[in-house]
Amino acid sequence: MIIVHHLGISQSDRIVWLMEELGLPYELKWYDRGPDFLAPAEYRALHPAGTAPIIEDGDLVMAESTAIVEYISQRHGEGRLSVPVASPDYPHYLYWMQFNNNLQAALFIKRSSQAAADPAAAQQNPIFVTMSRRVDGLYVALERRLGEAAYLGGADFSCADIMSAFNLTSLAGLGARVVDDSLPNTKAYLQRIVSRPAYQKAMAIAGPRASKPL
Amino acid sequence: MIIVHHLGISQSDRIVWLMEELGLPYELKWYDRGPDFLAPAEYRALHPAGTAPIIEDGDLVMAESTAIVEYISQRHGEGRLSVPVASPDYPHYLYWMQFNNNLQAALFIKRSSQAAADPAAAQQNPIFVTMSRRVDGLYVALERRLGEAAYLGGADFSCADIMSAFNLTSLAGLGARVVDDSLPNTKAYLQRIVSRPAYQKAMAIAGPRASKPL
Repeated sequence: MIIVHHLGISQSDRIVWLMEELGLPYELKWYDRGPDFLAPAEYRALHPAGTAPIIEDGDLVMAESTAIVEYISQRHGEGRLSVPVASPDYPHYLYWMQFNNNLQAALFIKRSSQAAADPAAAQQNPIFVTMSRRVDGLYVALERRLGEAAYLGGADFSCADIMSAFNLTSLAGLGARVVDDSLPNTKAYLQRIVSRPAYQKAMAIAGPRASKPL
Repeated sequence: MIIVHHLGISQSDRIVWLMEELGLPYELKWYDRGPDFLAPAEYRALHPAGTAPIIEDGDLVMAESTAIVEYISQRHGEGRLSVPVASPDYPHYLYWMQFNNNLQAALFIKRSSQAAADPAAAQQNPIFVTMSRRVDGLYVALERRLGEAAYLGGADFSCADIMSAFNLTSLAGLGARVVDDSLPNTKAYLQRIVSRPAYQKAMAIAGPRASKPL
């Protein structure tokens, strides 16, 4: 049985969501952040990179959301939430599986490069300019994709949606756009996503407002 | 035939390398950076995210290295440089396909959060502390993996190596570790990588010291 090492208030809630979507059994191990908001030493000891989520599957200890989600879908979910190589949606699926990494890196770098200088100086900083353009462009691509397909991986819900939803619900503090009427396709999509029973169950178990079971 | 839209001095050289490894025909379209080191408007018009590399394959315009490399390997290379789902190396392959995104995000955020404050203050910044730990841990994981397997995806060279090499050869300016005797497994691995004829050919065509063909 897969063990999901869950760090409270982190993106590791998406692994719980995936397990609920696939109807797979799992054991949840909960770790609270320290008063400094960092992961505790016990969590960091699980994998050298110290990122959340981490899973254990027999002898395998695995980190990195994108990798974990694809691994579980393919090895334990019969590829049911992955898009097959032969599908016309395959390149889109691969692209949107990376949206999470791409958007978060761009938001973080944009914010850090802005904080380093006054607002006028930031506009002269090529890193800030590049990342601002990239963030804006990622939302253009997102809104366009969701005008062409109901889900990021095509007509059906897939791992690409599991990878991406957190970026639309929980990253306003990092400078992510609020999904409102200025992004109509994305807004309708997000409504479909958060209405899913497996999403709601996972958020109750491990979402940002959940807490360690007694 | 695939068109590789190559931005000079960028990670898009890895697509040329992949095409050379697979022995596939391609058309190279070269774009020089502007005097501000940013991608030119003509390049940014290819895809909303404006990242390099970008490929065209018939009607498809695709961005994002990780996605492009897997797409070309699976759709045009018979999966020859991918690791199959049933292989014991499959989870490792998935993990190391993300090393490029993970290391670069951590290096960039670390540098930006350090630049924002004096060195002593950086040690009190949870983002700086987290990213410093993450960068250090990624090299621990890398050195460990290359003590277990000749290549990141297992005994054989794969797309995971194509995704990762740039991080070991070309990112010292961003704070990446120099691959020296302190990383013996990684050093021996990098020697194997840069000795490959397809790597050398691709670097001559599109590497950081190459320039736009006349």
